[in-house]
Amino acid sequence: MTIVAAPRTTFTDVQIEMAHGAGGKASRRLVERLIVPLLGMDSRLNDAAYLSVDETRLAITTDSFVVRPLRFPGGSIGDLAVNGTVNDLAVGGSVPVALLCSLILEAGTPTTIVRAEIQAMSAAAQRAGIPIVGGDTKVVEHGKADGLYITTTGIGRVDPRFNLSAGEVRPGDAVIVTGYIGDHGITVLLARGDIDLDADLRSDTRSVYPFVAALAEDVGPGVRWLRDPTRGGLATSLNELARDCRLGVNLEEASVPVRDEVRGACELLGLDPLHIANEGQLVAIVAAADADRALEALRRVPGGDAAAIVGHIDVTPPGTVLATTSYGGTRVVDMLVGDPLPRIC
Amino acid sequence: MTIVAAPRTTFTDVQIEMAHGAGGKASRRLVERLIVPLLGMDSRLNDAAYLSVDETRLAITTDSFVVRPLRFPGGSIGDLAVNGTVNDLAVGGSVPVALLCSLILEAGTPTTIVRAEIQAMSAAAQRAGIPIVGGDTKVVEHGKADGLYITTTGIGRVDPRFNLSAGEVRPGDAVIVTGYIGDHGITVLLARGDIDLDADLRSDTRSVYPFVAALAEDVGPGVRWLRDPTRGGLATSLNELARDCRLGVNLEEASVPVRDEVRGACELLGLDPLHIANEGQLVAIVAAADADRALEALRRVPGGDAAAIVGHIDVTPPGTVLATTSYGGTRVVDMLVGDPLPRIC
Repeated sequence: MTIVAAPRTTFTDVQIEMAHGAGGKASRRLVERLIVPLLGMDSRLNDAAYLSVDETRLAITTDSFVVRPLRFPGGSIGDLAVNGTVNDLAVGGSVPVALLCSLILEAGTPTTIVRAEIQAMSAAAQRAGIPIVGGDTKVVEHGKADGLYITTTGIGRVDPRFNLSAGEVRPGDAVIVTGYIGDHGITVLLARGDIDLDADLRSDTRSVYPFVAALAEDVGPGVRWLRDPTRGGLATSLNELARDCRLGVNLEEASVPVRDEVRGACELLGLDPLHIANEGQLVAIVAAADADRALEALRRVPGGDAAAIVGHIDVTPPGTVLATTSYGGTRVVDMLVGDPLPRIC
Repeated sequence: MTIVAAPRTTFTDVQIEMAHGAGGKASRRLVERLIVPLLGMDSRLNDAAYLSVDETRLAITTDSFVVRPLRFPGGSIGDLAVNGTVNDLAVGGSVPVALLCSLILEAGTPTTIVRAEIQAMSAAAQRAGIPIVGGDTKVVEHGKADGLYITTTGIGRVDPRFNLSAGEVRPGDAVIVTGYIGDHGITVLLARGDIDLDADLRSDTRSVYPFVAALAEDVGPGVRWLRDPTRGGLATSLNELARDCRLGVNLEEASVPVRDEVRGACELLGLDPLHIANEGQLVAIVAAADADRALEALRRVPGGDAAAIVGHIDVTPPGTVLATTSYGGTRVVDMLVGDPLPRIC
């Protein structure tokens, strides 16, 4: 048996920092410069991996959830753990088939809390129409976790009606989002109670599969690329796209649906709504000729009435996201660098 | 959309205790009385779940690893995370196809430690011949994890040469183990340094798939049931079998391979080697007529020279594991009740 020598890696950070978990530049450095080369993985950072077993094309994805606090307006860690993994399958262009869940429980956690989160998982899985078929449970000492961490894995059947890839994106394609951005991140931030700010906000946690199913049905191959903009927000997803397709993304900032409460909180905290995590939104790149049909399809899905075309793909500037502000100027929208919002999912 | 009311559960423990993670009676109570009914899962506690996608029969399994310390003689959390999941697929009668890994990293953990564990995962996956195709990374604050927790998920193709089920087990079937038991648990216990005891022991962490492949090749349907006796040890696996097949398991205690160092440590600590975790052993129930052929097949696999027939299945006492001691007496071998060895995997 030959064990190949470990490849060279270029990750030079000396220790793990919270920013490595924030979904922005530090996360990308950790994953691309340390984990991916050492594990010999495909370096494209998709939300799901693809696999052929016999004649069947499968998508598989796994995510750990460590959100703090465990419950917040509109949802809880159990909801996120199910919806987040269902959404990774959905934006991977697959039909979710089954979920697994693995729990790391902290000793001393009241049973009422564990029960509530398992019920939340069960209800979310029922709403998403996907069974939870297996799992695992571990327990760590009091203080060694925050009540519970949940890792979910999803398996899906690749939908042949799609041909999703950043390489399929063309100048002129429309950028569409399914609704208001930033609700989840700001809701969780406020639920921590560290900031003296009151806002009537709820997390948007939900399965986005109904949106993906509507696009498959009504648009099919005209859909080029899908993503659910979670950690790092819409800005990070679009920067990843711009980098991968080597084209520019042009956002019309005034068209991006942002609630007044989110905009207000962001202004107070010095944050950009485009960097705030979402847990129930889809961003779709759609061929120009199909954009109106895609928008109609998304708006017909319950909860999709705020869907909007928010920009388009351009030849220049390659690899960059530009926002046209409401004053008519433009600004570069970068990826998140630090971690203003740790443990958001 | 109809959300079914949460089913009644009979789990009455008021909070999570370390014993709920030990793999014994408390773990079973948590899983069978709370998690399985709330999630509406199949109540049979197999190591892997089965799924048909189109014409393909798949096995899928997930496990979180929280072993403390992270490294110990013979292995580390990275080895366990790969081998443990490969082994769950293997004893589920499937050919491992791919792995996913999700990391929960503690802020402040030196990169050297993270790098070493990712390298350990990579090397273990190479030895097992299975690619790691995707994953996720989260970071929690310093103090909220012990360096890192790893959750791995495995997907496999069900091997049609097997028909594994406790329901297939018959009186007279042989009980076979692949080697020395208890090495892993005692090694980890000693590596913690809490006990003033020195022994030249190494964890047995390895893929058991080569043993399963040898049985598939040489015995096939004569193999009735397979398990890797991890948390709770051989005693717990055999009690689960006895309960599920409603027959008795008769162990000849003197035939069970136990190293002197493990026996000695167990005597000093008041533990039973049959309750100690293994991470690279297989227990197989094989039709009497195939027992010798199975034993030969296992012994031909590198690392299988200590394989032994250690007992047989009997009509009575149903649901019970009896050990015939070296003095000729018999004793009931129960499942683990408390948790003498927390966080062993």
